[in-house]
Amino acid sequence: MAAPLPEGVSAEAMSSALDRFARIVGADWVFTEDKITPYEDPYTISNDETEHRPYAAVAPASTEEVQEIVRVANEFGVPLWPVSRGKNFAYGGAAPVMSGTVVLDMNRMNRILEVNEEFGYALVEPGVSYFELYDYIQEKGLKLWIDVPDPGWGSVVGNALDHGIGYTPYGDHFAMQCGMEVVLPNGEVVRTGMGAMPGNNTWQLFKYGYGPYVDGIFSQSNFGVVTKMGIWLMPEPAGYRPYLITFENEDDIETVTERLRPLKVAGVIQNGATVRSLVLDAAITRTKSQYYDGDGPIPPSVAKTMMADLDLGMWNFCGALYGPPPVMDTLWTAIRDSFADIPGVKFYFPEDRRHKVDLLLHRAETMKGVPKLTEFNFLNWDGGGGHVGFSPVSPITGKDAIKQYNMVSSRVREYGFDYMGLLAIGWRDLHHVTVIVYDKTDPDERKKLDELFNILVDEAAAEGYGEYRTHIRYMDRIAKTYSWNDNALWKMHETIKDALDPNGILAPGKSGIWGKNRRKA
Amino acid sequence: MAAPLPEGVSAEAMSSALDRFARIVGADWVFTEDKITPYEDPYTISNDETEHRPYAAVAPASTEEVQEIVRVANEFGVPLWPVSRGKNFAYGGAAPVMSGTVVLDMNRMNRILEVNEEFGYALVEPGVSYFELYDYIQEKGLKLWIDVPDPGWGSVVGNALDHGIGYTPYGDHFAMQCGMEVVLPNGEVVRTGMGAMPGNNTWQLFKYGYGPYVDGIFSQSNFGVVTKMGIWLMPEPAGYRPYLITFENEDDIETVTERLRPLKVAGVIQNGATVRSLVLDAAITRTKSQYYDGDGPIPPSVAKTMMADLDLGMWNFCGALYGPPPVMDTLWTAIRDSFADIPGVKFYFPEDRRHKVDLLLHRAETMKGVPKLTEFNFLNWDGGGGHVGFSPVSPITGKDAIKQYNMVSSRVREYGFDYMGLLAIGWRDLHHVTVIVYDKTDPDERKKLDELFNILVDEAAAEGYGEYRTHIRYMDRIAKTYSWNDNALWKMHETIKDALDPNGILAPGKSGIWGKNRRKA
Repeated sequence: MAAPLPEGVSAEAMSSALDRFARIVGADWVFTEDKITPYEDPYTISNDETEHRPYAAVAPASTEEVQEIVRVANEFGVPLWPVSRGKNFAYGGAAPVMSGTVVLDMNRMNRILEVNEEFGYALVEPGVSYFELYDYIQEKGLKLWIDVPDPGWGSVVGNALDHGIGYTPYGDHFAMQCGMEVVLPNGEVVRTGMGAMPGNNTWQLFKYGYGPYVDGIFSQSNFGVVTKMGIWLMPEPAGYRPYLITFENEDDIETVTERLRPLKVAGVIQNGATVRSLVLDAAITRTKSQYYDGDGPIPPSVAKTMMADLDLGMWNFCGALYGPPPVMDTLWTAIRDSFADIPGVKFYFPEDRRHKVDLLLHRAETMKGVPKLTEFNFLNWDGGGGHVGFSPVSPITGKDAIKQYNMVSSRVREYGFDYMGLLAIGWRDLHHVTVIVYDKTDPDERKKLDELFNILVDEAAAEGYGEYRTHIRYMDRIAKTYSWNDNALWKMHETIKDALDPNGILAPGKSGIWGKNRRKA
Repeated sequence: MAAPLPEGVSAEAMSSALDRFARIVGADWVFTEDKITPYEDPYTISNDETEHRPYAAVAPASTEEVQEIVRVANEFGVPLWPVSRGKNFAYGGAAPVMSGTVVLDMNRMNRILEVNEEFGYALVEPGVSYFELYDYIQEKGLKLWIDVPDPGWGSVVGNALDHGIGYTPYGDHFAMQCGMEVVLPNGEVVRTGMGAMPGNNTWQLFKYGYGPYVDGIFSQSNFGVVTKMGIWLMPEPAGYRPYLITFENEDDIETVTERLRPLKVAGVIQNGATVRSLVLDAAITRTKSQYYDGDGPIPPSVAKTMMADLDLGMWNFCGALYGPPPVMDTLWTAIRDSFADIPGVKFYFPEDRRHKVDLLLHRAETMKGVPKLTEFNFLNWDGGGGHVGFSPVSPITGKDAIKQYNMVSSRVREYGFDYMGLLAIGWRDLHHVTVIVYDKTDPDERKKLDELFNILVDEAAAEGYGEYRTHIRYMDRIAKTYSWNDNALWKMHETIKDALDPNGILAPGKSGIWGKNRRKA
């Protein structure tokens, strides 16, 4: 079916805007009709084909072109949905919240403007992928590591803006961001931090500049289009030693998490370490049918077989040590001693692994910032190949870990899915990321997933757990769980939105924020 | 003389507002006439007595009272200047930019709402001083360290909001902030991050929450009044070893800085270390008259005497090691080896120091987060006791360090002051903080200082160095140095200001941001 026009925009206005966009970027870089498929949600959850459908896409090549596009969009009231690379398939890919929105595709702006080895930073445009930045650094032989999320095809800028995480000591991507260039919804361009000083020499070195520190308002928001961003890079450490610690029992997650907290808070665990569930890990190297051909989640007996076969536990803690060998030795002793008394615990370094294709060998690359797509193997676990991420934030306590696990896994299994989850250990919180892999071609399964997801959000919120990030379909729902004092924070977001974007041009509905022209009462 | 009314506010309106304030907080907590002295700039630079004078002060005891005060201020158009403790004397104390502004004194809101040892954080109100937080932790015997700036009487909240720094590994105070409660200029109250979720369990554990990360816009701004803030605290490390490395020659600053960069970027230097100048350090334990009774800055021969007497260098690098002994040993070897070939270098641990009252013994306390007022001894260096901080940001390079030093010290000496400066080493930048100590009772010296300061700002900006923070008197001037793209960033600040504070009630002129009612063309 044809893509719907955005609410309140006439066919004439859209057509005029697209003509003007074509004059700005060239007709080859405006996409409509059969050419917009790449901008649709690759794993649509909705069974209503009119939802989350872009009308068109436009791909600028420079900040100036972004400014011109934004001005035209204001003139014709055409909404824009900026995506850096649009590769975050678990959260909707390049597709907009509101149907008819024109995707502002930043892929062509993929210049690596600077990589500074002395200070450890890069200045990049939003179209730069982790693969591209990594390759650039390798080609120049720079002694720098990047930090990557699981799929390496995503945008360095986009991931940081969406509060994404990775697995080296630089795993909190937004915390490592330093200095932005942003096109505002009125077409003006600002540089943040020290970038606001003409001729400055510290745009990528000092975040705060002078006056309000505004960078955060351009993350997970629709207040501007980031066209350049600085990101701090880690100097190649003197040593690197990835490890895997496996735990046999489901309930071990409680003790493991309780032991993890002091190690993380004290910096003994240096990186964005993860505790991963058996099926997620098995799915990196195997498919479900190799172990089980029944319906629904795998039974415990099969889990035992998988654990023995793959040298995995019910829970698998992937971490790494960084630094001079005596530092790594000291930290490792503390880590090993913290877990040594848990019955059935096993400790592995890469040389201890039996299989050539293996969880630790795979994570060993990721934890040193080598971009890959390996993690996506889990999509083949049970066929069908759609997936969505459910990502509530929790304190790092045993009590919360087991409660989270029980709440989520029981619901997921009740709906016939395998539990594939991980606890990503942040500075002082856990991101409990559950990946639900479903058959995206089956309308019944989509419907079931949608029902499940809504239940998960509501049940989490009732216990004080909130999502840190979500699929376009659930942005409004999750915003409503952040409702303290009669939604005061979202009302403030709306006030800022209206001031910066009076015509509601930019990304309607992003993070549950709507312009005043489309706001529901 | 009587304090002037704020521009555009009638005596009647002010009087009505003060009556209403008294009804909210009690008459004892509204200060006028002779009771407002504590809110005036303790080290006035201006010779015009009508400048930077508060008309009154009001001290609320709760978030609700702050909300009511803000609503009344809107009703009568009375501007408010919020201060946490108002103790940052080098930058204006509690005094407002605009004369007649009513100080909103948050000192009474000094509750320590929670200190969590397991996770390492505190939730505090803005009136809580470093001394109070430290004492609380000591009394309860909690294994936590705080991070303090030089004077311990300041506000934990206020310092973080002003992008202040300290000297432990948690020295970037704003980076350690997690979760705020903020009264907006319209009287509404928001909680940021996870605080926006009712019943959440991670307000002080995870910063970003969901949607735009807004905390930064309440720092160095006039967009809201922060009434609660979370701050991460460092677990007591397994070991601590402060050290001092002295360098004999003025020019050594170039080599020292060049060697520091890789150590800091790689995390070998773990803390907010500082390279300090001779006179600043001598002034901690001595006065100028003990060495020199001539006019103007001390001559080189006297500097030599001071160095020999006090076991100091022309530059003194104060750092510390934290962690298990093998970790400290490894890092120390790397640090020592980096500086060992500099002629005249000397390495000291506390047990190597001759004098009982000593720079390293003093900094050893500060680098483990013990709040003090010792650093203020420098005020007595030359009598007169006023001081102001000039604080441009620079890359961590030898070239920039020596250039900065030459630019600033030559001007400072030209104007007859001693150079008392330090380079505070941030993640990837230097804060070059120069303290200018002057006779606050002498109108000529004030005039000279004012002239000098303006020159320093302009000369720094011409070379791309911008201040990270400043005295109330220079807020406009420094804002104007951040003028990229026709002041685009400040125009954006004004847009947000007008949306959140349409009546321009809050802190007119803070960081060079004015409400639309008082904005100059």
